[in-house]
Parts: sequence; C-alpha cells; structure tokens
Amino acid sequence: MGIDIVVKRAIYEENDARAKAIHESLSARGVFTVNVLGGPGAGKTSLISALARRIRASGDQLAVIEGDLASDIDTRALRELGIDAYQIETGGDCHLNAAMIEAVLPRLRVEDGSWLFIENIGNLVCPAEFVIGEDLKLVVVGVSEGGDKPYKYPFIFNKSAACVLTKVDLKAAMGFDEAFFQAGLAAASPQAALLPLNGRTGEGADRILEWLRSARERLRA
Amino acid sequence: MGIDIVVKRAIYEENDARAKAIHESLSARGVFTVNVLGGPGAGKTSLISALARRIRASGDQLAVIEGDLASDIDTRALRELGIDAYQIETGGDCHLNAAMIEAVLPRLRVEDGSWLFIENIGNLVCPAEFVIGEDLKLVVVGVSEGGDKPYKYPFIFNKSAACVLTKVDLKAAMGFDEAFFQAGLAAASPQAALLPLNGRTGEGADRILEWLRSARERLRA
Repeated sequence: MGIDIVVKRAIYEENDARAKAIHESLSARGVFTVNVLGGPGAGKTSLISALARRIRASGDQLAVIEGDLASDIDTRALRELGIDAYQIETGGDCHLNAAMIEAVLPRLRVEDGSWLFIENIGNLVCPAEFVIGEDLKLVVVGVSEGGDKPYKYPFIFNKSAACVLTKVDLKAAMGFDEAFFQAGLAAASPQAALLPLNGRTGEGADRILEWLRSARERLRA
Repeated sequence: MGIDIVVKRAIYEENDARAKAIHESLSARGVFTVNVLGGPGAGKTSLISALARRIRASGDQLAVIEGDLASDIDTRALRELGIDAYQIETGGDCHLNAAMIEAVLPRLRVEDGSWLFIENIGNLVCPAEFVIGEDLKLVVVGVSEGGDKPYKYPFIFNKSAACVLTKVDLKAAMGFDEAFFQAGLAAASPQAALLPLNGRTGEGADRILEWLRSARERLRA
C-alpha cells in the first residue's frame, strides 16, 4: 500500500506547515497554547475547568476549544462556568488537525497574553500524530484505566511534556500499582512530569498550573 | 484532499473482502468470533478472562487474539490463566484490520466449534470502521468513563450488538448517571443490549455468556 504512505506523508507535511503558522501567530500575541490529550473519560474537561477557575482568579484570560466526534456536552458545561469555549464536532474523525484549529480561531475571542486550551478527541492513539499549533502537549490518564497505559500507548506519552494522573482518590479502590505506572511513564517519556489531580476536589490543580507557568517561562526564554 | 478519500475507499473495500473470507472460513468450522471494542482500560481483558473461565468450565474451547500498539501484558495475563492467546502489536496503528487477523490465524489453535475473542486496540473511534471477520461486535465501557460516552462516540455504539458496562461497583463513587447513559445508548444504538459487569468479582459474566450463546444461535439460524 505504497500510495497510502505517500498520501499520509503529504497529509503530515501539510498539517505541520499549518500548525507552524498557527503557533507563530498565537505566540506573537503572547498566547500560550496547550493541547490536552487523553482517552475517553480520562478527565480532560475536569482538568481544564479546574485550571480555568484558577487562571481567571489570577486575572489572566483563557479560551477553550473542545474536540469531539459528536455532541457539545463539554462546551456547554464550560460555558456554564462562564468560560469562552468553542466546539469542534469532527463527525467521526479520530483527532483534531491544524486545519480545524485554523478554521475555528477567527470565531473565538483569544486575548493577547492569554491561555488557550485545546481538548483533543478522547483517544490515546491518533491525536499523538498531529501538531495543531500548541506550545506543548499534556496527556491525561485516570487511575481507573489501570497502571499499564504508558506500556500500551507509549507514543502519546512520549510526545507529552507532562502526564496528569486523574481520579487519584480511586487509587486504593482500583488497586492502582503506582510504581509500575511510574516506571512505564519514565520508559516511554523520560522528560514528562507526573502531576496528580483529584478532579472532584481540585486538589493538585494549583501545582499543575504552577508547572504550566514554569513551562511557559522556559519555552519563552 | 480527494486522493485521501479515494485511498480510504480502496482500503475499506480491500479490508471488507478479506474480512468476509475470514468470517466464511471460521463460520464453516463452527467458530463464533467476537470483536471486543472499548477505550483504554475499559475492562476488555477482564471481560474476556471472566468469559473464558466460564466457557472452559462448560467444556467449550476458546482462543484469544490481543491487539495493542505495544507490549504483550494482556497476552501474558491470559496465558497465565491457561488461555491460548496470541498478541498482535500494531506498532502504532489505531485499529486491527482483516489482514492482521489473516496473518495471525495460522499461528493460533482455533478448534472447530470453538469461540474466538479478538480484543481490539483500546480506542473508541477507529476500530468501529473496520470489520475483521467477526460475527458481532461488543463494546465495553466503564462507569468510571462517565455516562456521556454514547453521545460523544455514537458510531462505535451503533456498530455494536451489545454494550458491556464495567466497573459497576464504582457507580455510587463516580456519581454515574445511569438514566442519562441508557438514553444515550438507546439513541446511538437502539438494538444494543446493555450488559453490566463487575470485572473484579465476575458478577454479570454468566448473563453476558448467556446473551452471547443466544446471539450465536440467532446468527446461525
């Protein structure tokens, strides 16, 4: 299936060029963009909500782009919190790409110097392969998914600057093997920070935001 | 990107033809094949283990094909239970396809009249688009993923003959909205049976096996 590989390469090259242009344009305005990855129900929207509350309390602005195959459930939930959110429904596509972000950006109010969170499709595979203009990728994984995820899905962990481990209140109930998980994460992604979160109470979100602020400083230096 | 669509159509057509041949060959020998779908950590392997114990206790034979991007964790776990299992590592591919199954079948002992379970890649998106020789698809989703999954991933639910709802012991802890989930499942997949499972205790597995035996009778009639 040689033609398949040629077409794939052309798709990646076109996407990379678009993503680079998006990133340059956002960076020039001081916008810091985070591509939030994770499987279905990992807690991506809960993470974004917890960060959004803290970011706004600190006087910063943010906007959110929500990706889903179908439905606008998460976007409505974020808007109810007063967060400026925009829904992309891919109609079946398994990842967001740069062209989708390019099409949506003019319809969203993204202030200079603000934060932009892009919640990708719930999928631990395909979104790893596409840059969409982000400064960095965060991968979100829940204790309830089991400790073996970095071994089974090493590519998405490898591409991520940090891993947010959610539902940490279920560790005991799930018999979560944290040492096994940490060893897998270290093997798949030696650079990735491990950041725990209890999405229900927000415990851990302060440290995640602090980590993101440091990463922003580092990347801008 | 017209060429992309043409290539995709060719890939689907080739895959459909291969899958049809696999299904005919297995059916002719009385093998009943189940394509087990679900997101990362939904509990697909726990379901297969619980069914395998019951199937062997009843005197039937079974074999399992395990799909993962990387690692053979699940295959080793099944083999420790004495189950004949074979690992496909896709190296990054987001779904199993019929060519992969075709390549693996000669290496696996699949008795006449037995059961064949194929655990697909942990992904609620792409595996829905590929038939791999199965009699039916089962989609596995955990209470811990939240009740909104059928709304956000309607396609995979629509393609499945039944939905196994796992981790039901976490319903209260997760604040799982069962009515919301059931309404979403009914909308996405009016035909799908809803089958609960506690993977830790095996509670629910008897009913799931009973349902599978009825489905086998129906499809053979």
